[in-house]
Amino acid sequence: MSNKIKKIGVLTSGGDAPGMNAAIRSVVRTCAYHNIECVGVYRGYEGLMEGDFKEMNARSVKDIINKGGTILKSARSKEFRTKEGRKLAYNHLINKGIDALVLIGGDGTFTGGMIFNEEFNFPVIGIPGTIDNDIYGTSHTLGFDTALNTVVEAVDKIRDTASSHNRLFFIEVMGRDVGHIALNVGVGSGAEEILIPEEDLGLDRLVESLRRSRQSGKSSSIVIVAEGDKIGKSVFELKDYVDENMENYDVRVSVLGHMQRGGAPSCFDRVLASRMGVKAVESLMEGKTNYMVGLLNNEIELTPLEKAIKGKSKINLELLRVSEIMAT
Amino acid sequence: MSNKIKKIGVLTSGGDAPGMNAAIRSVVRTCAYHNIECVGVYRGYEGLMEGDFKEMNARSVKDIINKGGTILKSARSKEFRTKEGRKLAYNHLINKGIDALVLIGGDGTFTGGMIFNEEFNFPVIGIPGTIDNDIYGTSHTLGFDTALNTVVEAVDKIRDTASSHNRLFFIEVMGRDVGHIALNVGVGSGAEEILIPEEDLGLDRLVESLRRSRQSGKSSSIVIVAEGDKIGKSVFELKDYVDENMENYDVRVSVLGHMQRGGAPSCFDRVLASRMGVKAVESLMEGKTNYMVGLLNNEIELTPLEKAIKGKSKINLELLRVSEIMAT
Amino acid sequence: MSNKIKKIGVLTSGGDAPGMNAAIRSVVRTCAYHNIECVGVYRGYEGLMEGDFKEMNARSVKDIINKGGTILKSARSKEFRTKEGRKLAYNHLINKGIDALVLIGGDGTFTGGMIFNEEFNFPVIGIPGTIDNDIYGTSHTLGFDTALNTVVEAVDKIRDTASSHNRLFFIEVMGRDVGHIALNVGVGSGAEEILIPEEDLGLDRLVESLRRSRQSGKSSSIVIVAEGDKIGKSVFELKDYVDENMENYDVRVSVLGHMQRGGAPSCFDRVLASRMGVKAVESLMEGKTNYMVGLLNNEIELTPLEKAIKGKSKINLELLRVSEIMAT
Amino acid sequence: MSNKIKKIGVLTSGGDAPGMNAAIRSVVRTCAYHNIECVGVYRGYEGLMEGDFKEMNARSVKDIINKGGTILKSARSKEFRTKEGRKLAYNHLINKGIDALVLIGGDGTFTGGMIFNEEFNFPVIGIPGTIDNDIYGTSHTLGFDTALNTVVEAVDKIRDTASSHNRLFFIEVMGRDVGHIALNVGVGSGAEEILIPEEDLGLDRLVESLRRSRQSGKSSSIVIVAEGDKIGKSVFELKDYVDENMENYDVRVSVLGHMQRGGAPSCFDRVLASRMGVKAVESLMEGKTNYMVGLLNNEIELTPLEKAIKGKSKINLELLRVSEIMAT
Repeated sequence: MSNKIKKIGVLTSGGDAPGMNAAIRSVVRTCAYHNIECVGVYRGYEGLMEGDFKEMNARSVKDIINKGGTILKSARSKEFRTKEGRKLAYNHLINKGIDALVLIGGDGTFTGGMIFNEEFNFPVIGIPGTIDNDIYGTSHTLGFDTALNTVVEAVDKIRDTASSHNRLFFIEVMGRDVGHIALNVGVGSGAEEILIPEEDLGLDRLVESLRRSRQSGKSSSIVIVAEGDKIGKSVFELKDYVDENMENYDVRVSVLGHMQRGGAPSCFDRVLASRMGVKAVESLMEGKTNYMVGLLNNEIELTPLEKAIKGKSKINLELLRVSEIMAT
Repeated sequence: MSNKIKKIGVLTSGGDAPGMNAAIRSVVRTCAYHNIECVGVYRGYEGLMEGDFKEMNARSVKDIINKGGTILKSARSKEFRTKEGRKLAYNHLINKGIDALVLIGGDGTFTGGMIFNEEFNFPVIGIPGTIDNDIYGTSHTLGFDTALNTVVEAVDKIRDTASSHNRLFFIEVMGRDVGHIALNVGVGSGAEEILIPEEDLGLDRLVESLRRSRQSGKSSSIVIVAEGDKIGKSVFELKDYVDENMENYDVRVSVLGHMQRGGAPSCFDRVLASRMGVKAVESLMEGKTNYMVGLLNNEIELTPLEKAIKGKSKINLELLRVSEIMAT
Repeated sequence: MSNKIKKIGVLTSGGDAPGMNAAIRSVVRTCAYHNIECVGVYRGYEGLMEGDFKEMNARSVKDIINKGGTILKSARSKEFRTKEGRKLAYNHLINKGIDALVLIGGDGTFTGGMIFNEEFNFPVIGIPGTIDNDIYGTSHTLGFDTALNTVVEAVDKIRDTASSHNRLFFIEVMGRDVGHIALNVGVGSGAEEILIPEEDLGLDRLVESLRRSRQSGKSSSIVIVAEGDKIGKSVFELKDYVDENMENYDVRVSVLGHMQRGGAPSCFDRVLASRMGVKAVESLMEGKTNYMVGLLNNEIELTPLEKAIKGKSKINLELLRVSEIMAT
Repeated sequence: MSNKIKKIGVLTSGGDAPGMNAAIRSVVRTCAYHNIECVGVYRGYEGLMEGDFKEMNARSVKDIINKGGTILKSARSKEFRTKEGRKLAYNHLINKGIDALVLIGGDGTFTGGMIFNEEFNFPVIGIPGTIDNDIYGTSHTLGFDTALNTVVEAVDKIRDTASSHNRLFFIEVMGRDVGHIALNVGVGSGAEEILIPEEDLGLDRLVESLRRSRQSGKSSSIVIVAEGDKIGKSVFELKDYVDENMENYDVRVSVLGHMQRGGAPSCFDRVLASRMGVKAVESLMEGKTNYMVGLLNNEIELTPLEKAIKGKSKINLELLRVSEIMAT
């Protein structure tokens, strides 16, 4: 490996996700392993524009592999969308002697990084960190697997009550634009129906499906609803609709909310984060830039940032069919 | 022990709570141990009025000690509040040869049981099962300890996000009339403020407290709000108020909802349920009736049902003070 | 699909694994969906030879998707290795009118199934269920992902003590012949060293590595050791060796044992089990036999049983390198 | 309150326990609340003799309430048992201007503290932190409740395997001198037998009990064995004994080990730690010394250290009876 890179910065940006700390740790340790200096940037692009930096060595990241959130903190930045903002950031990087950046985040993070790279020819590599799994070029984003377990455990708890009271529950899970969480959690928790942004099931089919479910002897039901479900009704409106259109249903609603983002990462996410961090740093060392590292067929591969942003992460339609069969 | 009781019925009623299954198991096994027949009644007083019974032996309750919810299912019954409903129930009990009832539930359950006892002189003993801990005559109701752990784990997850983004979170927890969950969880999760039904803190003090918290260097804050908080504003209204009255706060809301009721019971709740079930059955065998079993100073004691219903479960004011000190 | 299959039997055999119940559920529900009868066989091949069968319908498998172990129970059978034993089994299947079998288990289970298929031309499809992930033809066996999380959580707990006391811990995890669990858990828990059956690190390197680890400022260390580690020393012998050859080390040992096999399956394992069950039943319906369903590049694919048995599941050597870098 | 105390030191000593960090946090924040300076002492009495101190303020203890282990680290010290060692410690305290000590630990910690107090008339207050619950003067030591949940969850997992294979498991849990963990976990996990240091059940009764258990239709069994069980046989010897004296048993052994000490504290332990820390600091402020704070009848009370050390923590014999009834 050629090694013109002497100092690498790392930041987390956008919504936090479990595994971000494990990725930070991996970037820092890989730098240490290759005798590259490493600098943590606080609060994403905000801190980049303020020069809110901290030198990090191998010991700076001990005991964080199993922590949710991000020790570098995260933020969404409007100012970085301006040329002036990015110029500020560039100056801080040059002053600090930083040669390249590892960006941990999602779509927005990568878009910012790509523009920054184009304007200043500054080397950047992205690591996909978001529970939504909505990034092209990786089968799993950091935090997705953990979020699935967190949500499934919560739904298991709600099912205790649903079963005890013969109730119908609408449970809203994260996923404004994509149904990955809803789809996997729906199958994993044995939900009777799954409503996602990608498919308009229609209210009639929902009601029909619930009727069939009850006739088949089920005394309680769980419907998993992605935030951005195509039907376009909130879980509260769905409850009202069922209350009006079906008799003898005791319908309840639960919005799982922010707890879905937190918690200790799963083993899968920790391992994935460790692998991605190594690949990100070593790719920069090899002179590569403007790529995202991702998991493709269980290998860590590079995808151009542009593709990662523009490509569409597709849901596994097989899962919809599996879900339908399981709801028999 | 005199032993005129030959057959005991057991039911769960009202909201389900972790530990109810462990209590059912204990009642059934204690009956088996003393060669008393045991009959499970489904869906609380509903099933009682319908004669929805099932003979249970020691093996009927295997592998349920660690399950949330209630295998006997639960319901709230309007009809049992009528004399006719209770007469129906009495007839089923006599026909089935049942001599006494163990009632697992809360206030409403016990009120029904007490009236039933008065009208038909039918022996009943109550076991307090509700996550709210709002029953007089026991320091802990079944499910309370489990719910505290469930909620604290959820708040821990939300704090990951709060800390990563420097946010303020209002988190609504169960407790319409009492603040036990909010108070303990507030202290246990290190919340900055705790809003409960028993005390009107006032919005001004809340804002003041949050300002102080920020000045002292805290970058994120958690406020735990009981459903029935005295201020009388929902978590969403609290968010709006802070949005309007404080600058530079990124305020979010999370309503934990029904997941608080479910899950595998804690060791404490399993042990408590086991002890309570033994005491309930053996008290009936000793000819006692119209009592609730409860935990007082770590011993299982009897309290007359009437007292249990009318008495007021008081929150530990020391905890409010501890909370204030911890928020330093 | 042609549909000559009218009745399918399903059994679990060998060591139990989280996700087996989810797979049973999927097989039963997929049968119900396609109007095929389904029969559960108890205790694996033991029950097959005894005709210990139970008719199962869609409701028989409710509330088991999140349960560890197997409701059909499992066993290892010597008698099924004899021609007489298998003949007994065949007769029971014919008498019961069962047309095909779904076998959930590992190597031994599949070997039995393949021989049975050859002798009696009886259709069989295997589903890989074992926490060890030691089956060729699938990137993940059922239970593997859950076991990783279980072990990582246990190691996290031990690290609390290790860090508090500046100790070195040798932790033995499952894996007699393969190091998948050790390798992933080692990376996921941030272990300083990982000892696996596939590589002989040598005791000298281990001691060297621990010395370096301490010099770099680490005050505590975790070494993950697979049961069948190539060095050939038990964790207790490793402790003795370090006690003798290194000064000032407070060395402890923990053998995680059987708890690694149990627990509620992760979302990943539940989804995988659901997908595999559908594929197994539908493959039988399509006239396929003597295959194993497996996960390859995130798709469910078929591999001939013979290949699945003879092929070698390889560890990801990249992970060894990642582990070394992370231990910086 | 009189307030001659200006600076308080806090240390953790002996085996670590969940809740110790929450107690440290409480001591530090209570000091801050009362404008008392606070100094953390590293590695218990070892650090005291070396002057390994660190000034702590309210922000030093953020985000530790939910962490297992102890950020101040712990150690067992031989030198502090000598007069010279204690003199060293005293000099460091005087030099640093520390007026009083809060000691978090168990028997050994308190013995050291009491002697130190006698020799130098130096104010000390103890907080009982140990998972064993073997301290007189408190119904619960810090970490006990958490350990119960940790162990019960592990036993639940093992039961998955036990049930699936119709096995008998001997599970060793912590408790060299006292059976609190074994007794509570035995009842909480539905064990068939519980072997503790306080009672010699005898091997014959054990075998008899297991036979009866099997005859009653149980297909699998769990026996919980405290480390210091009175029978005096290790779990491995127990297995051998049953292997030799009972037919058709598939007996396995699991030693849970150090994972029992770790993990995030339960809500109960966090609240208890918070209350104890407040009481410890405020007692010192009131001029009290040589006491231990403890939980008695749900109130925080003081017990003279001497009594806490010499008194005997008694197991709840009612639980043994409950266990026997539950094993019906």
